[in-house]
Amino acid sequence: MTKELGIGIIGTGFMGKAHAFAYRAALAAFPEIPPPRLEMIADVDADAAAKAARQFGFLRSTGNWRELVQDPRIDVVSITTPNTLHKEMALAAIAAGKHVHCEKPLSPSLADSVEMVGAAEKAGVTTQVGFNYIKNPLLKLARDMIAAGELGEITGFRGIHAEDYMHDPETPYTWRIDPVGGPGVIADLGSHIIGMARFLLGPIAEVSADVRTIVKSRPVARGASERRDVMVDDVARLLVQFGRGCGGTIEANWVATGRKMQLGFELTGERGSLVFSQERLNELMFYKAGGPAGTSGYVRIEAGPQHAPYGQFCVAGGHQLGFNDLKTIEMGEFLGAIGAGRKATPDFREAYEIQKVVEAAIASSRTRNWVKVG
Amino acid sequence: MTKELGIGIIGTGFMGKAHAFAYRAALAAFPEIPPPRLEMIADVDADAAAKAARQFGFLRSTGNWRELVQDPRIDVVSITTPNTLHKEMALAAIAAGKHVHCEKPLSPSLADSVEMVGAAEKAGVTTQVGFNYIKNPLLKLARDMIAAGELGEITGFRGIHAEDYMHDPETPYTWRIDPVGGPGVIADLGSHIIGMARFLLGPIAEVSADVRTIVKSRPVARGASERRDVMVDDVARLLVQFGRGCGGTIEANWVATGRKMQLGFELTGERGSLVFSQERLNELMFYKAGGPAGTSGYVRIEAGPQHAPYGQFCVAGGHQLGFNDLKTIEMGEFLGAIGAGRKATPDFREAYEIQKVVEAAIASSRTRNWVKVG
Amino acid sequence: MTKELGIGIIGTGFMGKAHAFAYRAALAAFPEIPPPRLEMIADVDADAAAKAARQFGFLRSTGNWRELVQDPRIDVVSITTPNTLHKEMALAAIAAGKHVHCEKPLSPSLADSVEMVGAAEKAGVTTQVGFNYIKNPLLKLARDMIAAGELGEITGFRGIHAEDYMHDPETPYTWRIDPVGGPGVIADLGSHIIGMARFLLGPIAEVSADVRTIVKSRPVARGASERRDVMVDDVARLLVQFGRGCGGTIEANWVATGRKMQLGFELTGERGSLVFSQERLNELMFYKAGGPAGTSGYVRIEAGPQHAPYGQFCVAGGHQLGFNDLKTIEMGEFLGAIGAGRKATPDFREAYEIQKVVEAAIASSRTRNWVKVG
Amino acid sequence: MTKELGIGIIGTGFMGKAHAFAYRAALAAFPEIPPPRLEMIADVDADAAAKAARQFGFLRSTGNWRELVQDPRIDVVSITTPNTLHKEMALAAIAAGKHVHCEKPLSPSLADSVEMVGAAEKAGVTTQVGFNYIKNPLLKLARDMIAAGELGEITGFRGIHAEDYMHDPETPYTWRIDPVGGPGVIADLGSHIIGMARFLLGPIAEVSADVRTIVKSRPVARGASERRDVMVDDVARLLVQFGRGCGGTIEANWVATGRKMQLGFELTGERGSLVFSQERLNELMFYKAGGPAGTSGYVRIEAGPQHAPYGQFCVAGGHQLGFNDLKTIEMGEFLGAIGAGRKATPDFREAYEIQKVVEAAIASSRTRNWVKVG
Repeated sequence: MTKELGIGIIGTGFMGKAHAFAYRAALAAFPEIPPPRLEMIADVDADAAAKAARQFGFLRSTGNWRELVQDPRIDVVSITTPNTLHKEMALAAIAAGKHVHCEKPLSPSLADSVEMVGAAEKAGVTTQVGFNYIKNPLLKLARDMIAAGELGEITGFRGIHAEDYMHDPETPYTWRIDPVGGPGVIADLGSHIIGMARFLLGPIAEVSADVRTIVKSRPVARGASERRDVMVDDVARLLVQFGRGCGGTIEANWVATGRKMQLGFELTGERGSLVFSQERLNELMFYKAGGPAGTSGYVRIEAGPQHAPYGQFCVAGGHQLGFNDLKTIEMGEFLGAIGAGRKATPDFREAYEIQKVVEAAIASSRTRNWVKVG
Repeated sequence: MTKELGIGIIGTGFMGKAHAFAYRAALAAFPEIPPPRLEMIADVDADAAAKAARQFGFLRSTGNWRELVQDPRIDVVSITTPNTLHKEMALAAIAAGKHVHCEKPLSPSLADSVEMVGAAEKAGVTTQVGFNYIKNPLLKLARDMIAAGELGEITGFRGIHAEDYMHDPETPYTWRIDPVGGPGVIADLGSHIIGMARFLLGPIAEVSADVRTIVKSRPVARGASERRDVMVDDVARLLVQFGRGCGGTIEANWVATGRKMQLGFELTGERGSLVFSQERLNELMFYKAGGPAGTSGYVRIEAGPQHAPYGQFCVAGGHQLGFNDLKTIEMGEFLGAIGAGRKATPDFREAYEIQKVVEAAIASSRTRNWVKVG
Repeated sequence: MTKELGIGIIGTGFMGKAHAFAYRAALAAFPEIPPPRLEMIADVDADAAAKAARQFGFLRSTGNWRELVQDPRIDVVSITTPNTLHKEMALAAIAAGKHVHCEKPLSPSLADSVEMVGAAEKAGVTTQVGFNYIKNPLLKLARDMIAAGELGEITGFRGIHAEDYMHDPETPYTWRIDPVGGPGVIADLGSHIIGMARFLLGPIAEVSADVRTIVKSRPVARGASERRDVMVDDVARLLVQFGRGCGGTIEANWVATGRKMQLGFELTGERGSLVFSQERLNELMFYKAGGPAGTSGYVRIEAGPQHAPYGQFCVAGGHQLGFNDLKTIEMGEFLGAIGAGRKATPDFREAYEIQKVVEAAIASSRTRNWVKVG
Repeated sequence: MTKELGIGIIGTGFMGKAHAFAYRAALAAFPEIPPPRLEMIADVDADAAAKAARQFGFLRSTGNWRELVQDPRIDVVSITTPNTLHKEMALAAIAAGKHVHCEKPLSPSLADSVEMVGAAEKAGVTTQVGFNYIKNPLLKLARDMIAAGELGEITGFRGIHAEDYMHDPETPYTWRIDPVGGPGVIADLGSHIIGMARFLLGPIAEVSADVRTIVKSRPVARGASERRDVMVDDVARLLVQFGRGCGGTIEANWVATGRKMQLGFELTGERGSLVFSQERLNELMFYKAGGPAGTSGYVRIEAGPQHAPYGQFCVAGGHQLGFNDLKTIEMGEFLGAIGAGRKATPDFREAYEIQKVVEAAIASSRTRNWVKVG
């Protein structure tokens, strides 16, 4: 029987909880992975950590994340804290020989990310970064179809990740938009769609971008009259040139009033096309040229057990996966990779490659030129 | 701190696994419930039980379900076996003082179900039956809107549960269509949409139904030349009269070629209407009369944290729940009800009420008359 | 060159105008038909008739419909007046040897309709009744696919025509709901979906129906305190048995709050299915069993020139037909049939067959029994 | 009574026929306009012209367009010939004092268009260019909502016009892609979405564009082995800066495999957003921030008589307009403007403004810089 892996999570917020759900479900979905043992959870608030440990079924808790990363019973560390803390935590975990899952973006700056990639690769630990949406079985199908030439030569990509949680000018200034944490929406949401573009089509070679702040100032707190200038971007629009030759556009937007999860793309090839939106994550639209004259059109593919690993969650089609299931697939693959001694995807290096596109877009917007990606 | 509840699951198939996922996630989603302790899992195949216990994180396993229902460390029994076995297992569990969750339908016959309801109510244990789809936060919203009069007086309901897993005449004869297990699609899928109708609008008083077999015979095994006559129904169509006064139609269909999960309804009131389909379970369409002349229409409501208990799974809207999350809500409510000493919903009695509609429909189809529901 | 046909329209309201648009466009769309000469338009209000003649490009007008039907320059009479007037006008036109298009329903009562059918067939004139929606090229495609066996044996039909123009209890009592004009929604909207069902699948043999009045009284005028009892139906729900063997349901509803044109169906066969809604009249959803495992699903067929006679209106796909184009197809077929000396569809007899289903439904609802269709 | 206007159409192809339908329907839809008299139709093939005249109900025909533009009974000239012919025909018609409708794009080059604008304005004739899609009543609604501040300050626009009629590399080389006729898709489809963007949001000030040829060569005829190099663009992607301050993206694409009429936009404001696609031209999605917490979302607005001039075509909502109806609105507005002696929209000058954006995009793509629009 496979050796257990002791799991430690740092952070008990939105993503901390998502990781907990995922680790709790991973073995039931993926029986071949090393069984995760829910060992410890850390939060700067020790009471919150203790409460979370009880709720999520972890054996121990701590108010000191360093204790967690150094604990000998811990094999895997999940970092779900704000971006500014990722580097220090990751480096410490790596130094302690732990495998590390880090939420995206990897760090506020390319330089920091380089350091993290270097440390991880030198230590030989397995890493993964939380670009969970590409874990959707239908996106694996999409990638496989592209790779198999189902669509012919790819001629264009139009990608977007738009939400509206910052659209209201009265939404207060928070750590999320403090420039010390890195860029704004281009890093926060943009990294998802850039990562998805890369997942499907490979490297982005060059960009021309318009990255801008829409809401110029925000109240320091809900309802406060005092306002603070916003220094990070609210929307980013990119013309992109893929390394494989085709062009496209990418938009990241957190002031997209009305949109809660408009993460998706339309991808066109000479002989077919695919349309996807996370708003209907269990559907993929597929068009194949050359079908019968009167009865062709976009096919609505519904996720089912024929799309691995959907069947690990439900043997019948049409029952639908949710967000937490995508997170479970992510963690299942991570633990599976650790067990097999192979790289997980997307790893720190891939997150760094995504970040280079982010940085190129910002540079392009400043210089108003096309900029090559690192 | 709340006392733990020892959980036992009988059956390791489709629903056994779904229960396991749900029990594993329940406390993380609902911290106020008594913590479930995953105690034992049973399967007629002891090896399968042992494997499932490891995979799902249960402490023990057994090849003998009687051992499970009598184990003193077990407080709660989940029955996920074929219909014909429900009664014996449920009665034994109740006799041992266990709280019982039973998958739907409760039993093959009304007489058996009556006995189960009587035993449970006499014993005072908490019961629940697996009509998981009504655990969708958007359906709770729908019910609340109806109850609050948002739609005005209700004037009609059109409900359906159609799938296609039996549409192919070459799909073999299985236990699922053996009449010893009760009716066909009207019990299997029909009970879901009947239960949903009752959840939203209350009792169904009378029905006129057309319940029929489409595929008259099926091979005894995949590819076999020998065929066996099908004795149960493939499609059921009902005119219904609700106790509250309005009419409607209900269809259950497992030969609905192309449909994987067409469970839904359109519900109309004097001042508004609702449209729902499980094919897009995170959306509810809502129309409200009397809006501004040029800019009114159906509103697409996307599930979010404003729709409890969505927020227990994810703090951000648009991320979407999946099937297994509905199952988690179901189990969370069940354990919560046990902890609070109150009834869970839908309980054995509700399942029995649903079954009475099923039986009335079958009687109506035979006599070709309107039939009052028990 | 083909002989011209002199056209006369009786009525200048909603449908009178629709006929005028259609006759004006018919030759441009269908160059092979006898050219319509827009000869005369009649309205009980002679000024309205004169104004309409100018607006619609007719040569003459009259306040006396008898003058129109007897005019020797008139070959074709379109009757677009309220139901109660259809019979007298049609019989007079037929007696004068005119070809007659009559809006649906043919007449308030079966007896009247029988007389109209008999007169027309005896006179040998060409007739047509305004069931315009089945003139949609995509519905012709649907019928052809069914006839060609694309879906295999048909196993079920679920049809509906629901709108909401009577949903508000304060909408006044009008001639439209005066029982002297015949039944309510079952004749008004129900005839459309019954006709569509027959168009696709052939005769309906038997029905069990629930036909009811939802709004029991209405003000005699907008805002009036005096109310009048409503004697006709607001909603009709039918279980149907088709002559070909399959079953189905049909609903007609004019109190369907929110719906403006929910005319459509889901039609299932052993090997495929079709889904259509007039709400998106340029789309037909098609599912074909047996496709590739991971990439099958419903195909969204968009109307284009491959779907005759779409190409008569536009040589490029995706440009979309509208309601008035359907009316043009109808009139084009009517004039073409006259020119060719063949029957048009649907003719008076077909309208009568539809009305028999309407009457059977009403009888079934009264007796609460299944009723055979005449 | 208003004076009639004698109509002449040059060209009998796709657009010639569309103009004929529109002129035939215009008065029926818009009774207040000067009645069009269908006077003459011209085609280089005199027989085709004669046939078209009969079919479309025009009094006369000619094989010589100069005869048409000089005929004293002609007041209005519609030019529906290939782009390269527009200038000469328009200048001749203007010189003869005719009002001129010209299909888009105005001409192959900015210089030619300037000349056409100058001539028309000097002569004081009424002009219009065939950007028919913005005649959709729902787009007028959209523009009114934006102007009224319903969406708050506009923060972004994402527009596209994609079709697939050139996606197949074996589709032959035709006049349509001969560079003598001007740019490729950016002029053909791009002008529509650029015009729509301007219609909704006003001038575009600056662009960064990627305009490229995907299919590098095409056979000289269907199936021919000889191929010819393609010199015009197949796809154009633009970052745009609007004069009003907001940014956006625009794409034009005629190799978008699967798309037949993907002309649409998503337009976001601080307090609301609109989503439109010509694929469902009778629907507009509208989101308004600040609605009730649990029941807000995108509203699907269906076109109806509350959206002028829909009611001119049909008094009931949900019946739907088609492409030819949009063309009728266009012509109705044109003739109405002539009758009232006011400017029609979009006129030659507006078409020229659109063309300046097209040229700026091409220049930007060549220089790989942001380029200010003329």
